[in-house]
Amino acid sequence: VAIPSIDGAARLYAILGDPIGHVRSVVGWNSYFARAGRNAVMLPLHVGAGDLAPVVEALRRMRNLDGFVLTMPHKQAVLALIDEALPMARRIGAVNTVRRTASGGFEGDMFDGIGFVEGLRALGHAVEGRRATQLGAGGAGRAIAFGLAEAGLGALRIGDADAARARALAADLRAAYPALAADAADDAADPGGFDLVVNATPVGMKDDDAPAFAVDRLRPAQVVCDVIPNPEITALLRAAQGAGCPIVTGKAMFDGQLRAARRFLGLPDG
Amino acid sequence: VAIPSIDGAARLYAILGDPIGHVRSVVGWNSYFARAGRNAVMLPLHVGAGDLAPVVEALRRMRNLDGFVLTMPHKQAVLALIDEALPMARRIGAVNTVRRTASGGFEGDMFDGIGFVEGLRALGHAVEGRRATQLGAGGAGRAIAFGLAEAGLGALRIGDADAARARALAADLRAAYPALAADAADDAADPGGFDLVVNATPVGMKDDDAPAFAVDRLRPAQVVCDVIPNPEITALLRAAQGAGCPIVTGKAMFDGQLRAARRFLGLPDG
Repeated sequence: VAIPSIDGAARLYAILGDPIGHVRSVVGWNSYFARAGRNAVMLPLHVGAGDLAPVVEALRRMRNLDGFVLTMPHKQAVLALIDEALPMARRIGAVNTVRRTASGGFEGDMFDGIGFVEGLRALGHAVEGRRATQLGAGGAGRAIAFGLAEAGLGALRIGDADAARARALAADLRAAYPALAADAADDAADPGGFDLVVNATPVGMKDDDAPAFAVDRLRPAQVVCDVIPNPEITALLRAAQGAGCPIVTGKAMFDGQLRAARRFLGLPDG
Repeated sequence: VAIPSIDGAARLYAILGDPIGHVRSVVGWNSYFARAGRNAVMLPLHVGAGDLAPVVEALRRMRNLDGFVLTMPHKQAVLALIDEALPMARRIGAVNTVRRTASGGFEGDMFDGIGFVEGLRALGHAVEGRRATQLGAGGAGRAIAFGLAEAGLGALRIGDADAARARALAADLRAAYPALAADAADDAADPGGFDLVVNATPVGMKDDDAPAFAVDRLRPAQVVCDVIPNPEITALLRAAQGAGCPIVTGKAMFDGQLRAARRFLGLPDG
């Protein structure tokens, strides 16, 4: 993929992360700008955690920069460095996309969970009133759980190797969404009886990882989701396919996040 | 011109200026990276004078940024913000190119004058021992005068609407290059008797600008140079062509600057 040559009038966007070299969305964004015919570029900025504050301060002062995206390890820390966080970002305590306001300030929102729900819906899977079980209450898990709650999920069971973290997430969800039956459980690896089965842990990134859930308990009507973008078909998703379950991959979630972030940045579909 | 899609592993370079939208070297740099097959991008950064310090501080912290270029109004102010300035930059009191040192710091040098001399030499014009008259003792004029002095010019007469500025430049040149006969003069617009005739003022940018020098005094052996990149053929250069003089355009100077800056940044020819 080639992008049009960048000239002095190009508008700038940036992705801040550490490490950055492997971040695949950089190509996705730049391909999008090329398709959309925009004189804009998404820059990969390799910025360590200790350097985030001065870099965000400098981004404010770059008058041709219209927004930026956060990846590991900056999603939480950036919250204190911007002028305004939208409600979902405040609830989750993390920001993944920041845009310039009319007054030149920065406001941020969090689309990791909303993007996950978009990915589900794009494949025809409803969320409203459904029952889900989720493994992983870290950054990705927290965003997904809030995204599902916002979308009208009926019940959510959360498991995490760190049981206190799972309990804290369940409590935060109940406080923000009183209609949601959210609880933490030690036996969350059993998918039996749930409409949605969500892996939000890193289990499955390595080739020899066993599925995060007890896959012998999967039944054909269950929708099985995995946040891992690479490999796209994890051991969990392969077993789910074998059991006749529809699957949602990390790539579908990622594409949904990109669409939501683009809308927030005022960029057209494409 | 298209450039290869920028991915997470791209190396970053930046041009800092205010304004930035019209800066034509951004395209030149990005076309060069594309031709050379490098996964690198030259970013236009729109940064005002008051914001230079925090932006340079942030550039230090961007671990995938290998260097940057300064244009108006930052060439002087950046000198106080980098760790080391090479001798030519210290003499001129300005920096146009900064590179990362082995220890992660920033060191800068000034290639505006050296690039001008490269442009002259690329067209077969020697500088050693020659006599030059120059109009303009501002940023560009100062850089060119030091570049000519470093290249072994024999004598330089300098004129400027601000006579004190012309005298100060002549004094600085004599201090740094005792072998150079440098002086300021009120009648510098008369090119009579000089080997090199250099316009380093903005006169000629506008279509209806009269030539900066008294062109009726030009004789065929004189080399006539203009720093103005656009229009490439100014009224001065058109008159010089009419008088049978070889000319050196702002573009030739600019190309020479680019080659010198690339070498400094460790980038291959191309």
